[in-house]
Amino acid sequence: MNDTTPQTYLGLDGGGSGCRLAICDRSGRRLAETRGGAANYTSDPDATVRNLRAAIAAAAQEAGLDPAGLASCVAHLGLAGIMDAAQAATLAAAMPCDRITVTDDRPTTAAGALGSRDGAVAAVGTGSFVAVRRGESLRHFGGWGLRFGDQASGAWLGRSALERCLLVWDGLSDPSQLTSEIWQRFEDTPARMVAFGATSSPGALAEFAPLVIDAAASGDAQGRALMQAGADYIESCLAAVELRGDEVLCLTGGIGPHFAEYLTPETRQRLCPPQGSALDGALSLARAALDGDIAR
Amino acid sequence: MNDTTPQTYLGLDGGGSGCRLAICDRSGRRLAETRGGAANYTSDPDATVRNLRAAIAAAAQEAGLDPAGLASCVAHLGLAGIMDAAQAATLAAAMPCDRITVTDDRPTTAAGALGSRDGAVAAVGTGSFVAVRRGESLRHFGGWGLRFGDQASGAWLGRSALERCLLVWDGLSDPSQLTSEIWQRFEDTPARMVAFGATSSPGALAEFAPLVIDAAASGDAQGRALMQAGADYIESCLAAVELRGDEVLCLTGGIGPHFAEYLTPETRQRLCPPQGSALDGALSLARAALDGDIAR
Repeated sequence: MNDTTPQTYLGLDGGGSGCRLAICDRSGRRLAETRGGAANYTSDPDATVRNLRAAIAAAAQEAGLDPAGLASCVAHLGLAGIMDAAQAATLAAAMPCDRITVTDDRPTTAAGALGSRDGAVAAVGTGSFVAVRRGESLRHFGGWGLRFGDQASGAWLGRSALERCLLVWDGLSDPSQLTSEIWQRFEDTPARMVAFGATSSPGALAEFAPLVIDAAASGDAQGRALMQAGADYIESCLAAVELRGDEVLCLTGGIGPHFAEYLTPETRQRLCPPQGSALDGALSLARAALDGDIAR
Repeated sequence: MNDTTPQTYLGLDGGGSGCRLAICDRSGRRLAETRGGAANYTSDPDATVRNLRAAIAAAAQEAGLDPAGLASCVAHLGLAGIMDAAQAATLAAAMPCDRITVTDDRPTTAAGALGSRDGAVAAVGTGSFVAVRRGESLRHFGGWGLRFGDQASGAWLGRSALERCLLVWDGLSDPSQLTSEIWQRFEDTPARMVAFGATSSPGALAEFAPLVIDAAASGDAQGRALMQAGADYIESCLAAVELRGDEVLCLTGGIGPHFAEYLTPETRQRLCPPQGSALDGALSLARAALDGDIAR
């Protein structure tokens, strides 16, 4: 061992609403754990670099790392909005750690939720993706954003619910408690709903998801149809990989666990609580990289 | 008859890509026909007022109308993006004609396509709506915009096609000539498609509709499924009113006629070419108002 042997590792989970990171020593003890600003590279690359550098500097100070110690710290950053290797490389080059891996948040979410188990994670919050791990291989479904994807997500549930409200208005679908409740929020005025639709962010649409979830839980036909459509999307991903043996399924994110009761009995038997968060996953991936460095 | 009896009428059809208008004398002779700038009130109310005033002034000059003649001209304006009576009233008050009716473009499209016939119009371009007329009653479906509606529209076909491309990428749907052709346009790079999705207007999405139409015509399974889904939406509107007797169906707009072969045989028997354009419809509604004024 010489003085460039890494003594610490850093894990970071980031997205549009902020980032969380931790630095650990080789024994796994957390030397620092902190939060930072928004880090969605697609939405704002410059702010992402700025916020991540500030958050990492704050954590390094808390952990007592000098610049050389930070440079040799092995890091894994999992960030929503990283769409390809070129973006990952650009971002990595702007960070103060030399031994750094940048990925989107699917590998870190899978590593955190599954731990060492094989199986699938359906991560469903404002957006959505499904990740399936078998040994070293990791396969992803979705994560493409609301315009052309994010099936089953909170934003997708909200958008789908408002689409149904307008079908109900036109007499093409049956009204329900859910559609009436949503119409009340728009004062029974299609112009208000349409104006909202013209400018609403995925986050604003996702604010309707709890109404859908609650209505469905109460037996509301429109709510149940929406939740079932989301669950069917998750099932289609699982069917594409044919989960087998004792492979597990973790439902994560603010919306994910609510799909449990709409899955097939066979799929439900695989449900397991996630072992950890995406930050835990980023830490475990950084730790594995550090162990690899030392073994080399 | 005194000197305030209207001697002329004006019809106007407007939307995001411009407006067309004509002024006729009481015998129906066109004194002026002209085009003007964009007139989607939802997108830009100030520009709409400005462009409409300029277009109407140009037409009045061409028709040889002095300010008093223009003020007494009976006008009907049918404009995309007029969502309610309040918007219509605000816009009407800003126009130089005193006897003016402002509606969205559904009544003018129906009046133009159907003439004096009863039946339905499926108007499908970048956006979509279905209008059904029976005698004096007019019922509308859709026209709510792409976020929560516009089923079967060019923008909806384009968005749906790109959504399918990403499902194909994930192995959740079967590739076809259509999806391969679209992927080539994005250099087989999901990040490019997602970036396009984040900022694309309905018009930009609608540019993919001709690919869908052509692929479907060649028997492409993905293309046919999309066209069938659009046709099914149109059928659902017709089913809600149960077309009967000799009620006709007109397919209008750049996309509408392409749905003919995906409709049921029963519905296809009702197909008739539109009798006229939305401008013709606006003129006929203005003419009817003028006749009503005179008869009063």
